[in-house]
Amino acid sequence: MELWQVPLLFSRLPMFPFFDLAHYVASVMALKEQRGAVEVSVQSPVACWFSAMLYCFGGSVLSSLMLAEPPVAFLAKGANILLASSVWYLVFYCPQDIFYRCFAFLPLRLLVAGMKEVTRTWKITAGIEHADSHFKDAWLVMVAVGWARGAGGGLISNFEQLVRGVWKPETNELLKMSYPVKVTLVGAVLFTLQRSQYFPIARHNLVFLYTVFLVVSKVTMMLTRSATSPFAPFEAALGHMFFGLQKTPSKVKGEGAASSNGSPVCDRSSSEQHQDGVKKRQSKKTE
Amino acid sequence: MELWQVPLLFSRLPMFPFFDLAHYVASVMALKEQRGAVEVSVQSPVACWFSAMLYCFGGSVLSSLMLAEPPVAFLAKGANILLASSVWYLVFYCPQDIFYRCFAFLPLRLLVAGMKEVTRTWKITAGIEHADSHFKDAWLVMVAVGWARGAGGGLISNFEQLVRGVWKPETNELLKMSYPVKVTLVGAVLFTLQRSQYFPIARHNLVFLYTVFLVVSKVTMMLTRSATSPFAPFEAALGHMFFGLQKTPSKVKGEGAASSNGSPVCDRSSSEQHQDGVKKRQSKKTE
Amino acid sequence: MELWQVPLLFSRLPMFPFFDLAHYVASVMALKEQRGAVEVSVQSPVACWFSAMLYCFGGSVLSSLMLAEPPVAFLAKGANILLASSVWYLVFYCPQDIFYRCFAFLPLRLLVAGMKEVTRTWKITAGIEHADSHFKDAWLVMVAVGWARGAGGGLISNFEQLVRGVWKPETNELLKMSYPVKVTLVGAVLFTLQRSQYFPIARHNLVFLYTVFLVVSKVTMMLTRSATSPFAPFEAALGHMFFGLQKTPSKVKGEGAASSNGSPVCDRSSSEQHQDGVKKRQSKKTE
Repeated sequence: MELWQVPLLFSRLPMFPFFDLAHYVASVMALKEQRGAVEVSVQSPVACWFSAMLYCFGGSVLSSLMLAEPPVAFLAKGANILLASSVWYLVFYCPQDIFYRCFAFLPLRLLVAGMKEVTRTWKITAGIEHADSHFKDAWLVMVAVGWARGAGGGLISNFEQLVRGVWKPETNELLKMSYPVKVTLVGAVLFTLQRSQYFPIARHNLVFLYTVFLVVSKVTMMLTRSATSPFAPFEAALGHMFFGLQKTPSKVKGEGAASSNGSPVCDRSSSEQHQDGVKKRQSKKTE
Repeated sequence: MELWQVPLLFSRLPMFPFFDLAHYVASVMALKEQRGAVEVSVQSPVACWFSAMLYCFGGSVLSSLMLAEPPVAFLAKGANILLASSVWYLVFYCPQDIFYRCFAFLPLRLLVAGMKEVTRTWKITAGIEHADSHFKDAWLVMVAVGWARGAGGGLISNFEQLVRGVWKPETNELLKMSYPVKVTLVGAVLFTLQRSQYFPIARHNLVFLYTVFLVVSKVTMMLTRSATSPFAPFEAALGHMFFGLQKTPSKVKGEGAASSNGSPVCDRSSSEQHQDGVKKRQSKKTE
Repeated sequence: MELWQVPLLFSRLPMFPFFDLAHYVASVMALKEQRGAVEVSVQSPVACWFSAMLYCFGGSVLSSLMLAEPPVAFLAKGANILLASSVWYLVFYCPQDIFYRCFAFLPLRLLVAGMKEVTRTWKITAGIEHADSHFKDAWLVMVAVGWARGAGGGLISNFEQLVRGVWKPETNELLKMSYPVKVTLVGAVLFTLQRSQYFPIARHNLVFLYTVFLVVSKVTMMLTRSATSPFAPFEAALGHMFFGLQKTPSKVKGEGAASSNGSPVCDRSSSEQHQDGVKKRQSKKTE
């Protein structure tokens, strides 16, 4: 094997047991870190399981809905469901919380997070191919379905929260995109351009480069505890050029700095804790 | 006709006019007992009719969505819609409220509730067969669709309430399952096992036994005014064994005792009244 | 060309560039007039674009969902999306707000609103034909899909608002129908009757007469700044006959009079401002 063959071999990597497993571990652990999730796991294991499945298979559910295919199709993949359910059981109900504590150990956490990012590339390309088989050359549909497949858990988070009795209409992933949702959108655009042959690069090279970027940026963000998106300067430039926005860049930086004091390893927890705090104060006063 | 033929003949019982009628009567009366439903019927007959149709055909709508079939298909069954719409009209707009008062008379109410439970078995088996025709041997899909078809009105209650301008995100039927939703889940599992031949019993016998259990437990619960689920001990044992839950059983009993003081004939009213009361107090203070 | 040929020629009018364009302009301007929409356009152009697309293609999305066809199909119509996106960009981000100001000039606004109403007829009939190709002679499905296609933006407004972080569960277009939603329902019933041959009139004549009624009533309502629906007397009579309602007519008139003091050109703004005001006061007190 020579060095130039690495991307080709990498793009043939099977996802099934190990990378999928890492995706389930990272997703279910992110769920457990949501405020109120542990209470739900005690109150109703069924709601907790359903919520965990939406975290693990949200992209599949959302892209099925978009293409009018059965959204329950993911339940037919027995081995994946069994794997995800075992992870869910171990993360939430393992005695002494051993499983969660074990994977919360930073090096293991980094490994799992890195492997999860690899599955993102595979999901985006699968979504784009799926969309292309339904609508010939409809590049906007390809971008939308690729994005939905890759970032599904985030995009349906409002409805996933509803399963757990939480409802936060004042925000959603379109109004305030998190970094994973943004980078998936960029990926969906790149792979759509590549497939439409507007982007002169071999597919396996793009797969390799995009995945490396995903993994490196994720690991860097976890290590430096920074929430600043690498896209912030581009966004500021684009926002200024096309939408006449001026204040956004400084605002984004401010937020990044603020949340870097908290626990930046999990994606959305700090802002959620703040909002929950506000709600609690509200409900105390109104009672 | 001999005694051993009863289950077979029973399993061939046609649902159409009488049992379906009882289902519509019981469903629309349950809707009328929801807080605020009468005001909606005065304010907007269209919203009230749509809400009533979701109560009557919710299972069909939900299972269609899950299998990517047109959710409006139920509107094509003219005779059923006509029957359900007539029931809706009589329950809500009959002069002097004669129709509602008549069926609120306990013996009639018991008869209607018992017949409604019979339709549940038919819906679960229809849902499972439907799912099996789409996904071969995907037992989880069969359970999900059978459950959705049998308990649809309950599972989509959050969205049904939204039609009437009510939104209660803090609870749903997954977080806090009512007895009908639980017993439908058990039924969906049993019928799926039977269909997959893991459960060595003839189909018509299972249909007969499960329906008898449904009707007897429903009638007993209505007569004894008890909200305690017959599954409570099993749930407690399962919760203890698998999820390490300890306090659940006493809690469930406490709730049952509390709601047995109120009007336990209708499924969800007492807890809803409590919640509405809390909301009213909140809105009074905030105004 | 003779006078009696006008309806036939009119019913062959192509919608594509000009009438569709007017529909997009009117829809996106209505979005911009929603409270909070301008803030969303600054905060997240993606959410704003998606919201604008739901305003422009809401009927297509809703009717696709009802018939289990891909709801993203509208993204495949490249020319329409390009047109709608250009309109969205010009309305929200044009320097000095020239585009919006230009079309807010009353004569231009009347022209655009009139042309938008013409597209409504085309959408209703397309929806009915589409439903008829799926379900033979299911007149209720035809009415539902025709209505959804013609009034989609309104019917899904709760979910469109959710994209912008706004959630108003206490009302929806079924509970409190606006005039456009009502007139679309009447149109869907008329065209379904015509198609089922219960209504002895040639299709092109009905198209012509209904469209003339739509345009005239819309323009009159905009000029007289009146929010009173021309259907109010019929509704009162029907409500009295079938649903035993008595107070509705005076109430409707009262509301019409009240909102005629405000800015009646845009559909829902006055009642929304009132609600937002209430919310603000609430949140001030609860903070």
